[in-house]
Amino acid sequence: MPEPPRSTAPLIRDFRAVRARSEALCAHLGDEDLVAQSMPDASPAKWHLAHTTWFFETFVLAAFAKDHRPFHPTFGYLFNSYYNAAGERHARPLRGVLTRPTRAEVIAYRAAIDEGVAELLASDALSGDARSRAESIVRLGLHHEQQHQELTLTDLKHLFSLNALDPGYREPLPIDTGDAPDFGWLAFDAGVREIGAGGPTPLANETLWHDETAFAFDNEGPRHRVFVEAHALGDRLVTNAEYLAFIEAGGYETASLWLDRGWATVQRGGWQHPFYWREADAGFREFTLAGLRDFAPHEPVSHLSLYEADAFARWAGARLPSEAEWEAAASELGTCGALADDDRFHPAVCGPQAPTEPRTLRQAFGDVWEWTSSAYGPYPGFRAAEGALGEYNGKFMSEQSVLRGASCVTARNHVRPSYRNFFYAPDRWQLSGVRLAKDL
Amino acid sequence: MPEPPRSTAPLIRDFRAVRARSEALCAHLGDEDLVAQSMPDASPAKWHLAHTTWFFETFVLAAFAKDHRPFHPTFGYLFNSYYNAAGERHARPLRGVLTRPTRAEVIAYRAAIDEGVAELLASDALSGDARSRAESIVRLGLHHEQQHQELTLTDLKHLFSLNALDPGYREPLPIDTGDAPDFGWLAFDAGVREIGAGGPTPLANETLWHDETAFAFDNEGPRHRVFVEAHALGDRLVTNAEYLAFIEAGGYETASLWLDRGWATVQRGGWQHPFYWREADAGFREFTLAGLRDFAPHEPVSHLSLYEADAFARWAGARLPSEAEWEAAASELGTCGALADDDRFHPAVCGPQAPTEPRTLRQAFGDVWEWTSSAYGPYPGFRAAEGALGEYNGKFMSEQSVLRGASCVTARNHVRPSYRNFFYAPDRWQLSGVRLAKDL
Amino acid sequence: MPEPPRSTAPLIRDFRAVRARSEALCAHLGDEDLVAQSMPDASPAKWHLAHTTWFFETFVLAAFAKDHRPFHPTFGYLFNSYYNAAGERHARPLRGVLTRPTRAEVIAYRAAIDEGVAELLASDALSGDARSRAESIVRLGLHHEQQHQELTLTDLKHLFSLNALDPGYREPLPIDTGDAPDFGWLAFDAGVREIGAGGPTPLANETLWHDETAFAFDNEGPRHRVFVEAHALGDRLVTNAEYLAFIEAGGYETASLWLDRGWATVQRGGWQHPFYWREADAGFREFTLAGLRDFAPHEPVSHLSLYEADAFARWAGARLPSEAEWEAAASELGTCGALADDDRFHPAVCGPQAPTEPRTLRQAFGDVWEWTSSAYGPYPGFRAAEGALGEYNGKFMSEQSVLRGASCVTARNHVRPSYRNFFYAPDRWQLSGVRLAKDL
Amino acid sequence: MPEPPRSTAPLIRDFRAVRARSEALCAHLGDEDLVAQSMPDASPAKWHLAHTTWFFETFVLAAFAKDHRPFHPTFGYLFNSYYNAAGERHARPLRGVLTRPTRAEVIAYRAAIDEGVAELLASDALSGDARSRAESIVRLGLHHEQQHQELTLTDLKHLFSLNALDPGYREPLPIDTGDAPDFGWLAFDAGVREIGAGGPTPLANETLWHDETAFAFDNEGPRHRVFVEAHALGDRLVTNAEYLAFIEAGGYETASLWLDRGWATVQRGGWQHPFYWREADAGFREFTLAGLRDFAPHEPVSHLSLYEADAFARWAGARLPSEAEWEAAASELGTCGALADDDRFHPAVCGPQAPTEPRTLRQAFGDVWEWTSSAYGPYPGFRAAEGALGEYNGKFMSEQSVLRGASCVTARNHVRPSYRNFFYAPDRWQLSGVRLAKDL
Repeated sequence: MPEPPRSTAPLIRDFRAVRARSEALCAHLGDEDLVAQSMPDASPAKWHLAHTTWFFETFVLAAFAKDHRPFHPTFGYLFNSYYNAAGERHARPLRGVLTRPTRAEVIAYRAAIDEGVAELLASDALSGDARSRAESIVRLGLHHEQQHQELTLTDLKHLFSLNALDPGYREPLPIDTGDAPDFGWLAFDAGVREIGAGGPTPLANETLWHDETAFAFDNEGPRHRVFVEAHALGDRLVTNAEYLAFIEAGGYETASLWLDRGWATVQRGGWQHPFYWREADAGFREFTLAGLRDFAPHEPVSHLSLYEADAFARWAGARLPSEAEWEAAASELGTCGALADDDRFHPAVCGPQAPTEPRTLRQAFGDVWEWTSSAYGPYPGFRAAEGALGEYNGKFMSEQSVLRGASCVTARNHVRPSYRNFFYAPDRWQLSGVRLAKDL
Repeated sequence: MPEPPRSTAPLIRDFRAVRARSEALCAHLGDEDLVAQSMPDASPAKWHLAHTTWFFETFVLAAFAKDHRPFHPTFGYLFNSYYNAAGERHARPLRGVLTRPTRAEVIAYRAAIDEGVAELLASDALSGDARSRAESIVRLGLHHEQQHQELTLTDLKHLFSLNALDPGYREPLPIDTGDAPDFGWLAFDAGVREIGAGGPTPLANETLWHDETAFAFDNEGPRHRVFVEAHALGDRLVTNAEYLAFIEAGGYETASLWLDRGWATVQRGGWQHPFYWREADAGFREFTLAGLRDFAPHEPVSHLSLYEADAFARWAGARLPSEAEWEAAASELGTCGALADDDRFHPAVCGPQAPTEPRTLRQAFGDVWEWTSSAYGPYPGFRAAEGALGEYNGKFMSEQSVLRGASCVTARNHVRPSYRNFFYAPDRWQLSGVRLAKDL
Repeated sequence: MPEPPRSTAPLIRDFRAVRARSEALCAHLGDEDLVAQSMPDASPAKWHLAHTTWFFETFVLAAFAKDHRPFHPTFGYLFNSYYNAAGERHARPLRGVLTRPTRAEVIAYRAAIDEGVAELLASDALSGDARSRAESIVRLGLHHEQQHQELTLTDLKHLFSLNALDPGYREPLPIDTGDAPDFGWLAFDAGVREIGAGGPTPLANETLWHDETAFAFDNEGPRHRVFVEAHALGDRLVTNAEYLAFIEAGGYETASLWLDRGWATVQRGGWQHPFYWREADAGFREFTLAGLRDFAPHEPVSHLSLYEADAFARWAGARLPSEAEWEAAASELGTCGALADDDRFHPAVCGPQAPTEPRTLRQAFGDVWEWTSSAYGPYPGFRAAEGALGEYNGKFMSEQSVLRGASCVTARNHVRPSYRNFFYAPDRWQLSGVRLAKDL
Repeated sequence: MPEPPRSTAPLIRDFRAVRARSEALCAHLGDEDLVAQSMPDASPAKWHLAHTTWFFETFVLAAFAKDHRPFHPTFGYLFNSYYNAAGERHARPLRGVLTRPTRAEVIAYRAAIDEGVAELLASDALSGDARSRAESIVRLGLHHEQQHQELTLTDLKHLFSLNALDPGYREPLPIDTGDAPDFGWLAFDAGVREIGAGGPTPLANETLWHDETAFAFDNEGPRHRVFVEAHALGDRLVTNAEYLAFIEAGGYETASLWLDRGWATVQRGGWQHPFYWREADAGFREFTLAGLRDFAPHEPVSHLSLYEADAFARWAGARLPSEAEWEAAASELGTCGALADDDRFHPAVCGPQAPTEPRTLRQAFGDVWEWTSSAYGPYPGFRAAEGALGEYNGKFMSEQSVLRGASCVTARNHVRPSYRNFFYAPDRWQLSGVRLAKDL
């Protein structure tokens, strides 16, 4: 392999690292664990491994590598997720039937595409504008793969949660007996803020990629102005103990606390507590990636639907933050919680605040995603990418809500203040929690 | 009946007028037309007549009239729509089974409650704060009833549309052969705008109530600031002919034009055209409140889902306006289209613009509701009313989209720039159309 | 009108009588009561009135009357029930939207078709084979109409049952305090029996039509032999009190008593008692065509699904009879219970047996239909009629169960031992009850 | 291990053989193939392996082995299929989530239970009535396991059919170019027949078990008399070519050929051909356990619903046989087709009939199951077993139809004339075909 252009070496290092991480996350699991699909919203881990590879094959090799021949004539059909412009595809709710190709075949597929991409990047066949476009799609592919790493973990959690053997993805995790710090409000004045990709980031040192290139998805831009009225934000996440108080106060039985569709969902589903809590002899236990655990009062509450987050906030005399409020504050004051790089894979108790510490928005990046009051839509001036990649984000801009921050299963260098995660209001299988807000 | 307090006379006149209008809208229909329910989203006309009466009985008479005895012990159960705080209720999808009480009994119910309310308002039993609260609920009840007048008409349209006899609600309406004016863009600078109830209104003279009191629902406030980037708005609504061009260009077969859920809905439902268009030997015909009619190219297109409005805009290289963009422009430049008081009950061709006319946002108030890109949510500082009336608007603030303006079945004095209508993205039985917007 | 052929006069009298009866059953109800549809399985009374008329228009006038012109060009579409060979049709679950044609128009439709049919029958235009075929279809049409009379009553019962006003179709009916006679078993030897239309009938004197022609649907023949092992049948129907004992013994909570699909249905539907029983302060009340009534312990239990009938029988150490067992016994020993001609419209307490009375199968014809263990299928040698009328019975011969006897809403001259009624196992809105059987 | 009682040795040999066969059927497949569930009706192969083991553990070891301790505390919950009396259980549609226990753990589970059962049978701890009951349940367990062997194959076929890689369960199978023999009718006189377990069997020599004990499920008895009218049966199965003629004659577009629910199912599902046929450039191909294959005109048609079998018969001027007609004929004249012991796993072309051969009901036992016109119900005098094993057959006796014979994936010594298989009318994933019958 020839020496890659100097500037490309860091990208190749990142590429190798992200690709290796996906496989490392599955390495200790059996073939059977990787093939199963627990619900239409979730995908088998093997499928994630193959789909992320298809992404590089389709959008990089097929587009830029001369004489690229498909690794397998059927893989394009099997591993396209939702790109209409990339052709017909295997039905999403049936991903669990794909016992073939086997895990070993998928790993071989990964290896072949990895070599192809690395070779392409290192070669001088690619230059000028084509190189620039190819590198940018590789970078997109890495962030895409990090999203699937996160989904791999949440989907395995869901899968294991349905098995009466209560399997743990990782070894047991002791309950942290330390208290969360007292809850406080951070006040913010009214005024125009700038949000969206392209602003300053307090996380720069921690999260920069090897290639030192700032990356953002198309849905994070353009940077634009928003007027924000005076408000306050909670300085840490809501804890399990605080959420338990809501339950004990009859939260799930009080219609007036709920959005109309939330109340209907609670009634129809018989919801009585967060998704992975289980009623035990005395109180609750919680199913986690570390298996079934005792109740951890001071950890952030997680696996809430938007409905539950909203009802809790209303009960607490507060509301959810808007994404503008959140981003403006987090860009300036946000600090980190647990992230996937910690290999904890579960939210952690918020660390204590030293008396001399400046005001901070604790746990803004990590532990759990934070539901906002903002519907997921295009920013002013938003333009989706051309071609199939334009389907990446834009077409989902209806009927979903934005979550901000990051969770304990998000990769550290996937985190940035402008990041917009989005799910449907009833969704509960992601690590989704609550930060309170209120009008001033 | 004693002389009412001077200030109350106009309110009583409004009360009488709105209540009479509801009955007038049904007067020429048979008993059978009033009892049927065509789908869970729609209600029988008789049910609308009874429910609006229940509203006054429950929130005015039962709350303020000493010794009020329920008109009928079961009507509270039958005619509560969705107020959890007001008790159990008849299932919404089964409103069509209520052949009893009969129309005559419902009309008698209306008369009795009307007398009770008028007497209460006219009496001196009510004073001070209680009078003020009671009058404010009566005013709310009148706006509530106007909403149900609009629903009565859209629900009857849906009902009649399912009958192969193609019954008309009103007599036939000739096709207007006049052209719509050329489409133009109105440009707006970036900057902070104020929106929400409480601002100036260009419609004041036309729409004031007898009691000259400005009214707004709780969801229209508080007035607050919004930053709007530079943009342009279409100076009139999109027409049937323009929408037909989208169809003929393969709009319904082109996945890349659609939101993801929109495309799924189009596929599943086999959608090929707006809701009430019907394929005919040559082109299309349209079912209307005036029965089945020939295609009217210059009338505004109506009965679109949000998905269709959004796909059309994308195809046209444009987008939907946000509600802030719309309200800021309409407050200043909006003019009226057809409204319910015209007894046309169908959108009209946009009138020509005189050369000397200042720039106007034509058809802003009337003809069809205009889908916006804004999700329906609370304004900063929003507080729902106390008690059951707090369920009126607030609990629906999730997963719906805002429509602005008014339609040809909206009452003239129900119209105001801050008005927020809201429906789900797939809904098509309302008179919903498109005004284009674009970033500058 | 010319003098009809002598032999036709009785048929015309029957025709007039049956047609008049359909209208008489609705005469005391309001227009609104006739238009509503309470569920897809049920139809509006007005639709029954129109559909039975469409039957005569389509299969008699259009087929035999020279120069017949359709009464209305759209009625064929609106009032065809399920005859694929007779063309496209209005969707069954949407019959409740047909507010037009009005009741008055449907009555006029009936009058016009009635005159046409009577004239045709009386004329000499019809002769030989054509007359014979036409008369036979008229006779079929009368039995078809009697089925719809029964459905009119069960469908109105269902409609009224969903209305919290508890409307009665007829005036209140006092509770009969008399005891049902003691339950006894009638034993039958093994052997070959003949069943099917064409056998002797003990009911002949009571049920003969004016034209003295024995009628049977195609599904009742041909007469054929069946081998029956030794068995016994209960000599009367199971009562409400007996069924209550099953409930109180935990019948609805005991999986082992139920068919697999029955248990799933009970669990999913939360079934705890027969369809129209309602839990009251002390015990149960029952909704009937005479409105809401106190519990009547000695009346036959009714409105059971096959699942409930089967579970009760298992709990009682018995089983359901086969249709062959039932028909062989009823042809010889059957006596009548309440029928529609009694205008009671509710099952009656079984009359006492005089000491000298021969052994009888009490209540075999009337009170409630009796679920059998027999699936509804073709008899050996069965041939469906040619053309559209062949769809009358044959195409429903799968996945349904046969009920035998008659109910309190069946017309007396619609009753015969070979009659095969059929419904799906979960159906409960018909007057369906239980007679026990056991192997010997 | 002590010497088993002499009479038990053959049972132990059978036990070993059947248990080994289940594992042999999966031996060449990967772990991933065994874990997936393709639809709620089908189960993962690993689940079949575990469930059949749970059967022996629960009904033999736990019931008869002193001091038996459950192999694993959770396996009872995971591997109970539908026995309410045996406790709560894992949800059927979610069997595919059971990635744990692993295949290796399930194989270990099998080995442990196998040793336990063999030891118990060989021991003298068991004697008299207890031994007799235990041995009889072991025998039941072997037949139960053979049913699951058949399901393992049909479920794997369904699983593989959904994978665009078209995996074959076995190596490719050449198309047999030989013709099927000409179709002929075998006539039978009217008269009383005896059917049900306990009669003579022409298959005795071929199918006897080592222990030479005739076995039958409870639903096959008691033996009883049935009257059969004169009729004829087709002397071989219907072929693919014959079914193709039905398709080409517009069978799937002709409402009058179909049962009402069949027609609705065809319309809703867009059915155009048998379940595993696939439209190809010229005509059809077929997915099989040997992968995707060319059209084989002379093989028996398979994977038909009851609706398709019935519609084909009607189109052919015939009908389906009743189970009594079938059993009476097959007991006397039936011959074998392909069975699972042939390791072909696909229906074979019917062999030619030598001129001197007596009249035979060819392919009665093997190739495909034959839909009958008989609903699945209890025979006169039927008594379900006591306790949980009573749920084995009896509770499914509603709304299903009987299939007779056997298929190419049925074990040879599982076959007998009285065998009653049963599925729902729309089911198509079993190897189900058609034999014609007609009235004489």
